[in-house]
Amino acid sequence: MSIPPRAPSEAPAPSASAVERRRHRGGTPIQIGLLGCGTVGGGVLRLLADNARYLGERAQAPLVVRRVLVRDLDKERVAECDRALLTVNPADILDDPAIDLVVEVMGGEDPAGAYVTRAIEQGKGVVTANKMLLAMRGPALVDLAIERRVDLAFEGAVGGGIPIIRTLREAFAGDWVESLTAIINGTCNYVLTRMREGGVSLSAAITEAQAKGYAEANPALDVDGHDAAHKLVVLAMLAFGARVDHRAVFVEGIRGIDETDHVFAERFGFAIKHLAIGRDLGASIELRVHPALVPKSSVLANVNGVLNAIHLEGRALGPSLVYGRGAGDLPTAVSVVADILDVARSIVAGVAGLQTRGITMIPRPLLPMSEVTSRYYLRFPVADRPGVMAGLAGPLGEAGVSIEQMVQQGASGSGAAPVDVVMITHRAREGSLREALAQIEKQPFMIAAPRLLRIEDR
Amino acid sequence: MSIPPRAPSEAPAPSASAVERRRHRGGTPIQIGLLGCGTVGGGVLRLLADNARYLGERAQAPLVVRRVLVRDLDKERVAECDRALLTVNPADILDDPAIDLVVEVMGGEDPAGAYVTRAIEQGKGVVTANKMLLAMRGPALVDLAIERRVDLAFEGAVGGGIPIIRTLREAFAGDWVESLTAIINGTCNYVLTRMREGGVSLSAAITEAQAKGYAEANPALDVDGHDAAHKLVVLAMLAFGARVDHRAVFVEGIRGIDETDHVFAERFGFAIKHLAIGRDLGASIELRVHPALVPKSSVLANVNGVLNAIHLEGRALGPSLVYGRGAGDLPTAVSVVADILDVARSIVAGVAGLQTRGITMIPRPLLPMSEVTSRYYLRFPVADRPGVMAGLAGPLGEAGVSIEQMVQQGASGSGAAPVDVVMITHRAREGSLREALAQIEKQPFMIAAPRLLRIEDR
Repeated sequence: MSIPPRAPSEAPAPSASAVERRRHRGGTPIQIGLLGCGTVGGGVLRLLADNARYLGERAQAPLVVRRVLVRDLDKERVAECDRALLTVNPADILDDPAIDLVVEVMGGEDPAGAYVTRAIEQGKGVVTANKMLLAMRGPALVDLAIERRVDLAFEGAVGGGIPIIRTLREAFAGDWVESLTAIINGTCNYVLTRMREGGVSLSAAITEAQAKGYAEANPALDVDGHDAAHKLVVLAMLAFGARVDHRAVFVEGIRGIDETDHVFAERFGFAIKHLAIGRDLGASIELRVHPALVPKSSVLANVNGVLNAIHLEGRALGPSLVYGRGAGDLPTAVSVVADILDVARSIVAGVAGLQTRGITMIPRPLLPMSEVTSRYYLRFPVADRPGVMAGLAGPLGEAGVSIEQMVQQGASGSGAAPVDVVMITHRAREGSLREALAQIEKQPFMIAAPRLLRIEDR
Repeated sequence: MSIPPRAPSEAPAPSASAVERRRHRGGTPIQIGLLGCGTVGGGVLRLLADNARYLGERAQAPLVVRRVLVRDLDKERVAECDRALLTVNPADILDDPAIDLVVEVMGGEDPAGAYVTRAIEQGKGVVTANKMLLAMRGPALVDLAIERRVDLAFEGAVGGGIPIIRTLREAFAGDWVESLTAIINGTCNYVLTRMREGGVSLSAAITEAQAKGYAEANPALDVDGHDAAHKLVVLAMLAFGARVDHRAVFVEGIRGIDETDHVFAERFGFAIKHLAIGRDLGASIELRVHPALVPKSSVLANVNGVLNAIHLEGRALGPSLVYGRGAGDLPTAVSVVADILDVARSIVAGVAGLQTRGITMIPRPLLPMSEVTSRYYLRFPVADRPGVMAGLAGPLGEAGVSIEQMVQQGASGSGAAPVDVVMITHRAREGSLREALAQIEKQPFMIAAPRLLRIEDR
């Protein structure tokens, strides 16, 4: 029989849980506890205030902030923050039975992890923008949320304002993600963009990024690639249903890139981007984070500055890409508020936990890096003397790595002056290439270690 | 008080409607009626079969196709189509009380519109991929769905597999869309890409598109821009909450573009794309569809072939872009299946109609095209004789249109040979520019009508 159209206000006959549901349906507010009130938290308060009427209509209940956990009661806050709501005691939120939904925007693994765990245990819906926490403990938290039948939403954790989690979870529900290629660290992308477009050095570009607030005083988490790896692990949960140990992901940052590499990349028709790559190979998955050359005319090559983008290949959908501001208080806050609305609607509708139950994750083995295949950009700083070409080409040939293009930069014939020999290879197994490079490094003409960059042009 | 965690199976105590809800919660299938079984319909059947277990888990009920409306019972169908389900009688679906959800993938305004209306009136959820129907009657159908408390979902109607409707509806829930710039007709984008990259003529590119199945035998709906205008009207419903008469939207197709324009665009650093543009100006909205020059290094310039992309500017989010296959059976089917899952979940949860109720549309006046401001590319086919420059610059100057760059192509000094004078202007009001062009067209040195293309570089 067909289900007759039904209004939310036409609640079923009373029962303990139906009464609960109807309280909300009648417009009883959804009470929110906010953990953290920095830039993102301030943005969330602002958007909740600015869009209160619209959000209340969509949720079928007003969304009310009841308490805000901070470390310092006296610090200045956004105008939308009612100081009477501030507390330094997490129990005022986590143990308050009136609070339906906890929003965690503190960042870091601890104490955020303990708070989120406690909130879930108390039956509260949780919205978090904390990629580190999710990368470290995501599967356990999702399991707990499923067990306690609450929602755990985390759109803000990856790609700031980019709706990538929603896209993977909802839009791809009828498809399989075969691979993803993402620019998901705004600091790295800003630094590489400035090097490429402005011709500035790596260290100057990092200093610039710090001055603009795009990089931390200690930029290691970003420029060494760990932040991107955290996000990749979260994406792999949704894209491939994979439960992955974040420490097993291959990670390379951008500190090895210099201006010369940008010049050669340009000459070969590429731009250098810092990428997070995932690929479902069936028996295993490939997850890696490193700088790579992408064709200049590709969309990813033209995602510049602090912008982020995630390119997906779906079995049925084919290529798909979402792009936007990957960080910043307001973009991330927009994602957090979208999640708050989702979780609130589920609570009002009495279907809390249904979305999170759609996330299934099983442990998947990672393909060892030596088994990954790629085309490569290789730069050899050599002394310009006879026999160099044979000394480079020999070991590569023996390892089965074939050279597609080669250029030599620097005054040939000037004797001992160092020159750069740069090669683009055909697709090869990384393990084989590494063997060849180990041989080449022993050659007496090598002046410095060779530079290896992967080419992503699939 | 906090809402205790609650399983979907912990249904409230019985009442007429609660019993209905519990029937579904207990796993009673969601019965689907499919209207149309062409390429998209076949793709939907395939994806529902391939992902049956996953979708059933997500929906908390099996999704079962009960009837399929076709015109020809004997035509060959995809393997997933059970011929016993075929019918030529729409009442077998629309008037079957067992059917919960109707999926319309027939296309065209009629009889699809009558069927969708009937399905909504019968209290069935509706998923449609029909942009023409939505552009013509979207607001009335949404109103009807809201009145009858059913969901009307239409992700597949715009941008094929691109989750743009979901992005506007969900991800932007806490933000305002200030503007959108979209490549939403794959045929036009394929033709312009082939002209730009392959140097082929417009007519040859259209023939190629037809041979590849990217263009209809009668390509008018696509190349004249009407298809893009239909989609823009649907996007404006979601992005700006605007109820717009599709006949009032300014529409220009790509038939006026020739190879010469591509050559000049390239020289000035632009690519020519066919765009649909919307902008919320507060008192009015700007909606227009036309070819335009975009900077070569922009992401939109690098969206090629049949790919589509929608760029959004959010007040808080800043720039955001989604990109993918804008057409094709499987990409569109993925969007349709995502919608089926959404609508099914709402039916199972007993909250049918809640999503559609989030769509609010009010009539918004359109900014007249004469009031739109833009930078312009102008090409004047002129006889190469003295006084031409003054004859062009004079009327432009009088109208307040200032010239930023100018080039002359063709052998100067060869007397009567026709040459092209091409200009890039600073930002100007289109009405003023039109006045100047009306003056210029009267000049005796003009050999053909001037070409006007807008530049979109904001």
